[in-house]
Amino acid sequence: MTQTSTILAASQGAAWRLSRGEEVSIVNTHGSQVVDTWALAAEDPSEHSAMEHTRSKNSTIFLDEGLAVMSSKRRPMLTLVADTTPGRHDTLLCPCSAEIYAELGQPAGHRSCTGNFHEAIGALGLSLGFTPASLNLFMQVPLESDGRVRREPPASRPGDSVRLRAEMDLILVLSACPQDVTPINGAECRPRDVELLFHGVPA
Amino acid sequence: MTQTSTILAASQGAAWRLSRGEEVSIVNTHGSQVVDTWALAAEDPSEHSAMEHTRSKNSTIFLDEGLAVMSSKRRPMLTLVADTTPGRHDTLLCPCSAEIYAELGQPAGHRSCTGNFHEAIGALGLSLGFTPASLNLFMQVPLESDGRVRREPPASRPGDSVRLRAEMDLILVLSACPQDVTPINGAECRPRDVELLFHGVPA
Repeated sequence: MTQTSTILAASQGAAWRLSRGEEVSIVNTHGSQVVDTWALAAEDPSEHSAMEHTRSKNSTIFLDEGLAVMSSKRRPMLTLVADTTPGRHDTLLCPCSAEIYAELGQPAGHRSCTGNFHEAIGALGLSLGFTPASLNLFMQVPLESDGRVRREPPASRPGDSVRLRAEMDLILVLSACPQDVTPINGAECRPRDVELLFHGVPA
Repeated sequence: MTQTSTILAASQGAAWRLSRGEEVSIVNTHGSQVVDTWALAAEDPSEHSAMEHTRSKNSTIFLDEGLAVMSSKRRPMLTLVADTTPGRHDTLLCPCSAEIYAELGQPAGHRSCTGNFHEAIGALGLSLGFTPASLNLFMQVPLESDGRVRREPPASRPGDSVRLRAEMDLILVLSACPQDVTPINGAECRPRDVELLFHGVPA
């Protein structure tokens, strides 16, 4: 396999076209960075990664090693083929958005994962009139037995990584979460870069 | 308040325009019927009920009495103002769809909550290019401590009801779930009618 490396800068988003079989490793360089993740089918970008179908198909609320993110048409999109973190990536909570930063008392213009999603697909000439729920890699949202959710800093360590395999030709969208008000990206509330390693399929 | 009653037939969906302050009671006549529920903002139907924002705002995975369904723009849409059931309405799992019935070995054409959603808003002259995740009233999806979900028949009894208040002018979409292969609508796997009571605001 060919391999290329790139940096996804703190608080930024980006999108890439992946062919079926290609893999990407997301390296949590600093250990504490949540990465909001989506996929859109290349042949029809309205077919999107759907957390409600992912939970239904896998019969669990977490995305753990060996499980696949399912599309809105119930097709596997991304398989978590390797994971050096403690796992339990979140599928429950929304990507952060302009409205959430307003709730948190932040001035208009704060970057958000929702904004990053639309900006990133726009750079590929695409647009969607809605925001799919995100897979929140590295994000720790443990549950109480009564159904209440807690929000904790990532349990990953610097250099931990996850590796995703594209199960169809797709557009991968990632956002290095800009959340700097709550400690979801670590107790320092400081968004960080992550490193991406693309493992291409042989030509 | 004025009050009108209607029947939502087994396996069917329908949509209604509600004004802010209007309420609807959904009576589980036979006790075992799941009702998939959505709301769209009247002023912009692309603003939709969003389970990922609902869980985030309420910090729980269940919709229980007193909690509101939030929109994709983080605005309250529907509050569960009264509930005679044991509660814990599901927010986790997808509405059933043509693809799910194919997985279950059913012939094409089986009714589904996803199909009902699009048919119902179409009858109001609306269309959406995606299917929002549904609030699954009466549906019981308890969680194990490791994150696995179970699927159980409704815990409600015949005549139990929930009452929802519209927090904005909106389109309410309901589907009496057509699932007749698994026991999510009760051990008999028999979809049933539910009764709706609309409580209008005084003119």
